[in-house]
Amino acid sequence: MSETKKETKEVVSIDEIMSKLSLEDQTSMKKLLYGSNYEPLELPETVMNFAKKMQFEIGSYRIISTPEQVRKARVVRMAALQTKLPLPTTAPVIEMRAAIWKRAEEAIELAAKAKVNIFCLQELWTMPYFFCTREKQPWCEFAEPAENGPTTKFLQVLARKNNMVIVSPILERDEVHSDVIWNTAVVIDNHGDVLGKHRKNHIPRNEDFNESTYYFEGNTGHEVFETEFGKIAINICYGRHHVLNWLMYGLNGAELVFNPSVEAGDFSEVIWPIEPRCAAAANSYFTCAINRVGTEVYPNEFTSGDGKPAHKDFGHCYGSTYLTAPDGTRTPALSRVNEGLLITEFDLNMCRQVKDFWCFQMDRRLEMYAERLTKATKVDYVPQIVRK
Amino acid sequence: MSETKKETKEVVSIDEIMSKLSLEDQTSMKKLLYGSNYEPLELPETVMNFAKKMQFEIGSYRIISTPEQVRKARVVRMAALQTKLPLPTTAPVIEMRAAIWKRAEEAIELAAKAKVNIFCLQELWTMPYFFCTREKQPWCEFAEPAENGPTTKFLQVLARKNNMVIVSPILERDEVHSDVIWNTAVVIDNHGDVLGKHRKNHIPRNEDFNESTYYFEGNTGHEVFETEFGKIAINICYGRHHVLNWLMYGLNGAELVFNPSVEAGDFSEVIWPIEPRCAAAANSYFTCAINRVGTEVYPNEFTSGDGKPAHKDFGHCYGSTYLTAPDGTRTPALSRVNEGLLITEFDLNMCRQVKDFWCFQMDRRLEMYAERLTKATKVDYVPQIVRK
Repeated sequence: MSETKKETKEVVSIDEIMSKLSLEDQTSMKKLLYGSNYEPLELPETVMNFAKKMQFEIGSYRIISTPEQVRKARVVRMAALQTKLPLPTTAPVIEMRAAIWKRAEEAIELAAKAKVNIFCLQELWTMPYFFCTREKQPWCEFAEPAENGPTTKFLQVLARKNNMVIVSPILERDEVHSDVIWNTAVVIDNHGDVLGKHRKNHIPRNEDFNESTYYFEGNTGHEVFETEFGKIAINICYGRHHVLNWLMYGLNGAELVFNPSVEAGDFSEVIWPIEPRCAAAANSYFTCAINRVGTEVYPNEFTSGDGKPAHKDFGHCYGSTYLTAPDGTRTPALSRVNEGLLITEFDLNMCRQVKDFWCFQMDRRLEMYAERLTKATKVDYVPQIVRK
Repeated sequence: MSETKKETKEVVSIDEIMSKLSLEDQTSMKKLLYGSNYEPLELPETVMNFAKKMQFEIGSYRIISTPEQVRKARVVRMAALQTKLPLPTTAPVIEMRAAIWKRAEEAIELAAKAKVNIFCLQELWTMPYFFCTREKQPWCEFAEPAENGPTTKFLQVLARKNNMVIVSPILERDEVHSDVIWNTAVVIDNHGDVLGKHRKNHIPRNEDFNESTYYFEGNTGHEVFETEFGKIAINICYGRHHVLNWLMYGLNGAELVFNPSVEAGDFSEVIWPIEPRCAAAANSYFTCAINRVGTEVYPNEFTSGDGKPAHKDFGHCYGSTYLTAPDGTRTPALSRVNEGLLITEFDLNMCRQVKDFWCFQMDRRLEMYAERLTKATKVDYVPQIVRK
């Protein structure tokens, strides 16, 4: 694979560059870039040694919040996994899936040692991001039923064993309904039961993101899953760009919204640190943006609709997995190049604390916007333009 | 004033810290923080000398975009002014206003020399941010009619003289309708005519932002003003936190949305670089976030509702005025401490180019959200929660 050569050119992370500054300058800069309400989360040496052995970069942080008088703190630990393909894309489907499962199992074991309660995998975590190729086979063979497919069964065992909620974004094949394919996140609770599934609400139609060739806009709404470790939701990948998508999860009571994604390219990276963070602040909940790393190289040439010659790789997936708190504070990201696990600890009570502080949920004039949006979607809507 | 002592403690800017890195690291970091599609905009030496003489920091940038075959480029130059109070807050109302006018006139002259087409002043630019005090007098005397008040008349002359659109956010007194007070932006076109006005849609109710004691939520909708230099809108200050507010300006056709603001405090600064930037990306238009600088000290003590002792200052307004392009690229900010002028040049055609690339305007499922929001605003709305 040409991968190794490519990766060496990539910048590791903003934090790696910042580490060259004086401690004072680093502190000032981090405060401006990330906010003040986070601190390192110390993990036991055994955990760190295991991470090192398994070659997972660890980012571990605690979001700082205030105890309340009436409510008990609801502290949870969340982990988000950032990995690359373990095999070339030419590997047979079952071998690829098995190798990816193995890596996830290692990461879940690591998270369990770190006492993690909620674990989220990447978008379409069992497979290459083959949509760039626009080819149907063998790729569609990665699709599997959400409720009782092999990947769900595999994770149910790990969820039960580790008392861990696991969010598993896969390519779903709905065998009960005409073999329709969906981009779906399966939520498995800490007892190993499938709590439900959520289908991606917004499907991209640009560059290498040819997903609209494979599946349609989700029909499951904006479910919030009530787990023993808080109310979670999943805004899959491209739904990140749509503020109303984020808003509906908030209106349904989400406290933590995952954004499992596959992202490569400058045009995407420039807004990667912005959108999920803005959503956290706008809706007073936690968000976690998760991306894979590495360059996926495909057997056959494809074009990217950008006037450039045909090529075989999807570009560098830039990782940079990070979490944002409801007050807009964010953690540093995992690197742009390494496999890793982001582990964060926070008190879910912070959501309501921030709501009580800012009051966005009260001063946003939702009735007015419901009415105006309804008007604005009519074919004969006349925009409010002031002319001389 | 205790101002001087305070200011020296403030960090100047992220860019000032970054300048200590190697050129290579600076380039990598700026690409990750700001994106790639901007470059310095060279201004003539005469302009820079005048700026120096007048003690205005200059940030000048060009957003890079692509020429089209069919449409002519619509290149405009925009300036945003960031200043501090020229006199102590104890100065008489008319003296204060005259001193502030003088400083604005210098800035507009500077902008004219730099061939600026559209000029935007700060929120409530003619006055101290007195709302922190919760006192009514003499502060309410700063309010004046939008259409024919002294400040509008003052600016009409400058707009006509310099062939410049001027956006003037003031405290409006509607003498025709019961002396109601509003937080309003007046749009004066390049011929010196008042094109219209926009009233702030969302009013804060937190910390020192006691604006709801003085005026109510705006009743002018989400107007877009069609000027000779593009379609502009104004999202005043706190409206920055509300994604639906930004969305409506987009649906009405805005190409450039100003966000004139008064902002101080860590809780606000952490999201300052995020929200207007996210809005630019989400709505495929340019945004410009504008803040004042300096610490305003008031004659009488006031409290901030944060459990801390009474005090006389509002905290440091952190400046950091910046512009974002529709693709999420942003300019570096003006500093956190100096008065300055941000001058940017860009092609308004970029808005449609970005729309054609991402297609957010097509894949956002607006009809679905109009329906869901309408339901979600009902008192008996039942959130979509999945329980075991």
